[in-house]
Amino acid sequence: MMGLNNMLMGYQQRIESVLDNVLPRATLNPTQLHGAMRYSVLEGGKRVRPLLVYATGETLGIPVQQLDIVAASIELIHVYSLIHDDLPAMDDDDLRRNKPTCHKQYDEAIAILAGDALQALATYLLASSSAYHLVAEKRLQLIGLLSLASGSRGMAGGQAIDLASTGKELTEPELEYMHIHKTGALIRACIQMACICADDITDIQQHNLDRFAQCIGLAFQVRDDILDIESDTETLGKTQGADIAANKVTYPSILGLQCARQKVVDLHTEALHYLADFDGAADNLRHIADFIVKRLK
Amino acid sequence: MMGLNNMLMGYQQRIESVLDNVLPRATLNPTQLHGAMRYSVLEGGKRVRPLLVYATGETLGIPVQQLDIVAASIELIHVYSLIHDDLPAMDDDDLRRNKPTCHKQYDEAIAILAGDALQALATYLLASSSAYHLVAEKRLQLIGLLSLASGSRGMAGGQAIDLASTGKELTEPELEYMHIHKTGALIRACIQMACICADDITDIQQHNLDRFAQCIGLAFQVRDDILDIESDTETLGKTQGADIAANKVTYPSILGLQCARQKVVDLHTEALHYLADFDGAADNLRHIADFIVKRLK
Repeated sequence: MMGLNNMLMGYQQRIESVLDNVLPRATLNPTQLHGAMRYSVLEGGKRVRPLLVYATGETLGIPVQQLDIVAASIELIHVYSLIHDDLPAMDDDDLRRNKPTCHKQYDEAIAILAGDALQALATYLLASSSAYHLVAEKRLQLIGLLSLASGSRGMAGGQAIDLASTGKELTEPELEYMHIHKTGALIRACIQMACICADDITDIQQHNLDRFAQCIGLAFQVRDDILDIESDTETLGKTQGADIAANKVTYPSILGLQCARQKVVDLHTEALHYLADFDGAADNLRHIADFIVKRLK
Repeated sequence: MMGLNNMLMGYQQRIESVLDNVLPRATLNPTQLHGAMRYSVLEGGKRVRPLLVYATGETLGIPVQQLDIVAASIELIHVYSLIHDDLPAMDDDDLRRNKPTCHKQYDEAIAILAGDALQALATYLLASSSAYHLVAEKRLQLIGLLSLASGSRGMAGGQAIDLASTGKELTEPELEYMHIHKTGALIRACIQMACICADDITDIQQHNLDRFAQCIGLAFQVRDDILDIESDTETLGKTQGADIAANKVTYPSILGLQCARQKVVDLHTEALHYLADFDGAADNLRHIADFIVKRLK
């Protein structure tokens, strides 16, 4: 499997420690809820979204410690969505990151509340943390952007469209529309939020980074659909073949596996194209793009 | 039943219209999700929390239009918590505000997502709405306060304690601890957030209003427990006797009905005491306190 370079692995360790710090201790009341929040957030995941935040920061010359809270808040939103998506009433998954899902480890009620509380915590951090230095107006922009990306016109809306589409025929544009919301909005938010933290960024740079995010967001999803077919449960850390079992429309089911693979290649090329005007400071963004299209889980 | 005066009924109409405006249209994609959000938020409820925001604003001389978004954001958080609390995995209620609960009218998945999206919308409004005029620092304070009051150390935490306590023996202090989080934190937030919007407020005023909020928050809950025994399903708009059926510890079950009634009277007296230094501008706060302890639903 294609690995991450040392710098990106360093970011993975960094966000692990930031998340550990911002989550309430499991000894703090209500202990079961805090335990469930920590169980789902810590020790797992590729941390693609935090990596994107940090690598965008590198590209734009933002000191890394100024991005910790942004990276953590996005990851908390991502994890809350995984907890809720895994619930029996939604995708009904028992396994996530090679561990029992939150509602299997605890129970459904705690899983619902853990997700709810993680969303609140993400907001709280952006509004109140003294650990990142940003003027109040920019903090408000970050909060506005993240809440929009995760709400009914973003991630939560995408999941609703996904559920409504299960078992139906979808065209490729309809499938793309769903993914732009379900996973694309939050991946885009990583890069947009890092751009807000920059002191000095041109409109063109912002546009190109945003287009890069849109391309890799979609590539990420097409690759996910392919892995659901090609990989195995142990490597994935979640149930292989879940899409087919749930009768979900995927890129391979619409385009065929060969064309789906080609689509990943095309999106990868397009993504890199949008980084053409950035120098070596964008190398880690390029590396993440490679990782996304070549990953095995 | 004790009614509201014309001014408070005017606020009820006002918040109905504000909520209607801030919620995405049901014709906007994803239509089912937006329909579910509107179904649960609109046309229902006593709107006690928005009334508290507006009446605190009156007490402090804040123009009413500056409080619309604050009142709406708190009510959205409250409704999201009702949707999630009513789910089968939580309190499993079929009826709310005399209508089928969200998961009965739609389905569980949509109910989970509608709650999630309402939480995001509440945050989005406070961060980005141009409909209220407040400096960025104060907006951040509002967002920080609401996310803290609704998260694991506030409302969501209180619900987790409630679920963990069901079927267990609780002492009165333990029961109070649960309610201080489950319902108290958000009721307190109403008054604290209105105080943040004030140009000019002394520490003593803020302290007294906060203590008022704590007293009526608890009185609200004790009254709720009594109504669960004394009222009927049609008046309540939710299932009567649900606490007993779920084997929940309540104030009447610990104190006896007579002492629980006395506790409401005592909390009411204490609440009014904290308004003693405010003039007639606080009359609507006094009226809400009366309403809370005398209401029949």
